[in-house]
Amino acid sequence: MTDPLSFQELSSCLNGIQEDVVTPWEVATTSDKGVDYDKLIVRFGCSKISRELLQRFEHACHKPLHHLLRRDIFFSHRDLDFIVGKMEQKKPFFLYTGRGPSSEALHLGHVIPFLFTKWIQDVCNVPLVIQLTDDEKFLWKDLTVESALNLARENAKDIIALGFDPKKTFIFSDFQYMGQCPEFYRTVCQIQRLVTFNQVRGIFGFNESDCIGKIAFPAIQAAPSFARSFPSIFGSVANQAEIGCLIPCAIDQDPYFRMTRDVAPRLGLPKPSMLYSVFFPALQGNQTKMSASNPNTSIYLTDTPKQIKTKINKYAFSGGGDTIEAHRANGGNCDVDVSYQYLRFFLEDDAELERIRQEYTSGKLLTGELKKILINLLTGFVKEHQKRRAEVTDGVLDQFMTPRALSLPF
Amino acid sequence: MTDPLSFQELSSCLNGIQEDVVTPWEVATTSDKGVDYDKLIVRFGCSKISRELLQRFEHACHKPLHHLLRRDIFFSHRDLDFIVGKMEQKKPFFLYTGRGPSSEALHLGHVIPFLFTKWIQDVCNVPLVIQLTDDEKFLWKDLTVESALNLARENAKDIIALGFDPKKTFIFSDFQYMGQCPEFYRTVCQIQRLVTFNQVRGIFGFNESDCIGKIAFPAIQAAPSFARSFPSIFGSVANQAEIGCLIPCAIDQDPYFRMTRDVAPRLGLPKPSMLYSVFFPALQGNQTKMSASNPNTSIYLTDTPKQIKTKINKYAFSGGGDTIEAHRANGGNCDVDVSYQYLRFFLEDDAELERIRQEYTSGKLLTGELKKILINLLTGFVKEHQKRRAEVTDGVLDQFMTPRALSLPF
Repeated sequence: MTDPLSFQELSSCLNGIQEDVVTPWEVATTSDKGVDYDKLIVRFGCSKISRELLQRFEHACHKPLHHLLRRDIFFSHRDLDFIVGKMEQKKPFFLYTGRGPSSEALHLGHVIPFLFTKWIQDVCNVPLVIQLTDDEKFLWKDLTVESALNLARENAKDIIALGFDPKKTFIFSDFQYMGQCPEFYRTVCQIQRLVTFNQVRGIFGFNESDCIGKIAFPAIQAAPSFARSFPSIFGSVANQAEIGCLIPCAIDQDPYFRMTRDVAPRLGLPKPSMLYSVFFPALQGNQTKMSASNPNTSIYLTDTPKQIKTKINKYAFSGGGDTIEAHRANGGNCDVDVSYQYLRFFLEDDAELERIRQEYTSGKLLTGELKKILINLLTGFVKEHQKRRAEVTDGVLDQFMTPRALSLPF
Repeated sequence: MTDPLSFQELSSCLNGIQEDVVTPWEVATTSDKGVDYDKLIVRFGCSKISRELLQRFEHACHKPLHHLLRRDIFFSHRDLDFIVGKMEQKKPFFLYTGRGPSSEALHLGHVIPFLFTKWIQDVCNVPLVIQLTDDEKFLWKDLTVESALNLARENAKDIIALGFDPKKTFIFSDFQYMGQCPEFYRTVCQIQRLVTFNQVRGIFGFNESDCIGKIAFPAIQAAPSFARSFPSIFGSVANQAEIGCLIPCAIDQDPYFRMTRDVAPRLGLPKPSMLYSVFFPALQGNQTKMSASNPNTSIYLTDTPKQIKTKINKYAFSGGGDTIEAHRANGGNCDVDVSYQYLRFFLEDDAELERIRQEYTSGKLLTGELKKILINLLTGFVKEHQKRRAEVTDGVLDQFMTPRALSLPF
């Protein structure tokens, strides 16, 4: 429950351990193919997204599926069919996602859930709430309240620069919103009454030496799953207790929402539906996810083209042959190649991605050439982002972070 | 940590137990003289108020001491000299007290700390904050948020009717204030980071089956000890971190403030000073305190003159002789006589109280006569209170409960 371990520490911890470590605070596996997600969803008790459900989703939203869904990057769910049902019947639901603002710059792994959530918001035209858990970071890290609040604001600017619509999106910091909305604390308290220490110990691995702030925190991440925490958005909806909630996030957040879904019926409220992604791998390989605590594992949204080029060329784990000759003869292994994995996340064109996969697997495409494709793609993405980020003024930020009515389709 | 036990349950629990039970949730002893306070303050680690300190207090406030101080009803303290020093040097401090709103009507035991706090406020001319822990009652009892909030408002009206000055007094419900003042939650979080589950288990007796709301709650009772939780009151004071805090309350609240005083220096803030009273006994005797959960142990501020008369005549434990003859011969025992104890709390005239004590002890005054004096006194007190209570409108209540600047003498 303390700071995340470094890549090296994790690797050494994991020697001889068979089960993947997946918690909201650490992700690690000994396999170079990454976490065994099939085993993980059995352990967590969530489901794979079936082809049938994806088709229903596509049909209900009247748009081709996002590549992160097509490629099984968002691969698992809990009660997604409940939300697809709402889409089909044009019943109200909202989106909720979030971020723990622990470093000033977001990295590429951080933006994936936001890019995906934005797509759902666009195709479904529903309100979105984004929680910045500055209180969590204050409790877990050696930060002052002021630094945590400041990180939340800096992170919010990056999130806004991804293109969210202020008419449909509310971004809030816990430290700020708790003091603005009595209903938020009331929902938190209602959840806290239904969850025991034994339960959070079982779910999150807390122990008796953990501070009471950490022990009580899961209720604060749970509370935005319920429309009643946002009276300024949903106050005008006739039957608030029937508004659904869809939460897209990486699968390591499942413990929070297992707990949330457990208390929901006891509060007379609908369980939030979950849509889970795999992890965005560290540059060094699939054994862990990209982490802000080690700059050499990560590409940041603040990196220069030169930094991006250097990091990918130097650190991105290659599935290619040891020599050009060996590569030409045996081909590369896309399953472990980090550059190829990143393209799966960021290159939208399926045909182009498939061409790259075939050419790299056959040995026609060299590692240096593959990395160059990735460098070009990410340099463009980051550059565009930086341009938009520069335009997010404090005034724009305050607009997104003010509790207010949003434009609702229901 | 569940509902308080009934008087009978407690008595049976206590058969054979030597140590008095004193926690924020229950008070019980097997002795008919009541809790052994000398032993208790050794156990808690607080101090008796010395004659010298009382004289300094009297000198600093330029008024004769309140009878509750003169009679050692407020008998124990932590760092009261720190506050007396502030009084002598005319440095800023404020008062903090509170109540857990668990029943609609306050009883006589509830009003004691408020009457005393009002006196300190009057003689020292300092601001007072009164916390209504509706969240605590929600977490401990089978109440909805709405009922807890409603009880808080009803109780606040009774408190206001005791004569507090709206220019110097802020009354707040946690459920309301948490959503009005971001600084309150920030202080709560700062405290929660410094206290572990092991600590609250040791201090409050919580266990692993308690809900995480209870486990985290002590930080919420601690937070008002610090001026920073009230920016609308103290925002204009140059050095907020030096503002002292004096908390008058019954000694069963000590666990909360032991914890608070432990974290204060680690937050760079002054430890609150404590002024502790003995318990207001139940009608049935000194073995436990008056409790709202058993109506026959309590005289409520809503009782009619007839109810007061009946309860005292029927239930108030008598230290008198078994027959008139025995009483005349041997006299009564004021140490165990509940009516006499109540007069110590409510009869302000020292000479009159001493006359009653001597005449009862000698056997001159009969139990029925003693009870009649008490009935007259309390009937008058309750009647006056009900008259003032009827004048406390919702508008007056809202005025007291609105976060705002108060009139400060510093």
